[in-house]
Amino acid sequence: MAIILFDIDDTLFPSTDFSSLARKNALNAMIRQGLETDYEKLDKELQLIIKEKGSNYQKHFDELCSRLNIKNPVRYIAAAIAAYHDTKTSIQPFPKVPFILLKLKEKGHHLYVATTGSSIKQWDKLIRLGIGLYFDGVFVTEEKKDEEFYRQILEKLGSKPSDCIMIGDREDTDITPAKNIGITTIRILKGKHIETPSDADYVIKNMKELLIILLKPSTQ
Amino acid sequence: MAIILFDIDDTLFPSTDFSSLARKNALNAMIRQGLETDYEKLDKELQLIIKEKGSNYQKHFDELCSRLNIKNPVRYIAAAIAAYHDTKTSIQPFPKVPFILLKLKEKGHHLYVATTGSSIKQWDKLIRLGIGLYFDGVFVTEEKKDEEFYRQILEKLGSKPSDCIMIGDREDTDITPAKNIGITTIRILKGKHIETPSDADYVIKNMKELLIILLKPSTQ
Repeated sequence: MAIILFDIDDTLFPSTDFSSLARKNALNAMIRQGLETDYEKLDKELQLIIKEKGSNYQKHFDELCSRLNIKNPVRYIAAAIAAYHDTKTSIQPFPKVPFILLKLKEKGHHLYVATTGSSIKQWDKLIRLGIGLYFDGVFVTEEKKDEEFYRQILEKLGSKPSDCIMIGDREDTDITPAKNIGITTIRILKGKHIETPSDADYVIKNMKELLIILLKPSTQ
Repeated sequence: MAIILFDIDDTLFPSTDFSSLARKNALNAMIRQGLETDYEKLDKELQLIIKEKGSNYQKHFDELCSRLNIKNPVRYIAAAIAAYHDTKTSIQPFPKVPFILLKLKEKGHHLYVATTGSSIKQWDKLIRLGIGLYFDGVFVTEEKKDEEFYRQILEKLGSKPSDCIMIGDREDTDITPAKNIGITTIRILKGKHIETPSDADYVIKNMKELLIILLKPSTQ
């Protein structure tokens, strides 16, 4: 029986793909509301805004309308936000994820999320992915996921590093700091960081391989 | 050709029904996430909170969990908010509304919204109802809809009261102030204010009757 910590974005679901689709759907919704601007022009300017302001900036579409001198922008902003949110709330897990998580629960493992951001947003994702019931808790940090973050998780759970496994797609935040304090690490090759070399204990392409790793003596 | 001003809630779609369904779905979503509290208990406390804090209070579900001493509430709050929003974003117009609005457009009338709240929220509703393209603009006031609000609309549109029709379900905000400054008023009998007596120029049960009224000489 192990404690298994999961990153969410690009580990449990293809977040990069959904973000990109959400932006595309938002721009198309503006055009559907009658905006007479080419998709390519909107897309180019939006990419620049994301680059400058970051992807968590709240006023992307306001800024887009302002930069392109769009008159009476509220209807287009409303259309963009609605389409963006609708895409972001229709997220689906990587196909094998729900089945594998259920198998892990059946084997008595305890599942937690360890990620950045607000806990309400992370629970929202788990619930929308249809896997909320499999998780005992969510650990979040507003800062970087560093050794201290993982140390605090172990402390809160009253666990030793050797009882614990961390799975994620990012070497710098999911693997390195967890490994440094003795947690078994599994790097999953998904999303935009797929090419980064890994120093993790295990490297997997697919969540299904997790079951095989957990059968090995050292992590049982 | 007339300028026709519409209220949205309970005029273009059954907002009272959707709000009530949204709260119901939110409470059921909390229970689906494993909350071991009866639906009736949750519902009773939520009604009290709405009564005390108003329906636009942003932290209904936080407050609910706090009052019922629910441990680790974030997953339940996230579930409630997600279900609430999903219901609120799946609104549908009264069945005859889209067809009637299109007919009005074909006859050359100009359609506007005149309501309270933020313009982005009102555009969001129009777009989600699938009727955004039929409207030339949205007039909102953060305050009460009073004579001054309607006077300002006429000024912005450069119109006379006699060119203008206002349609809504509420006597106090949609009918009385508009009628007082000479706008033709149509009260639609929908939603929770259905029993309030009306002094409007016309009282209709259904949007379809609008077409008949507009054929009368005085409003053509």
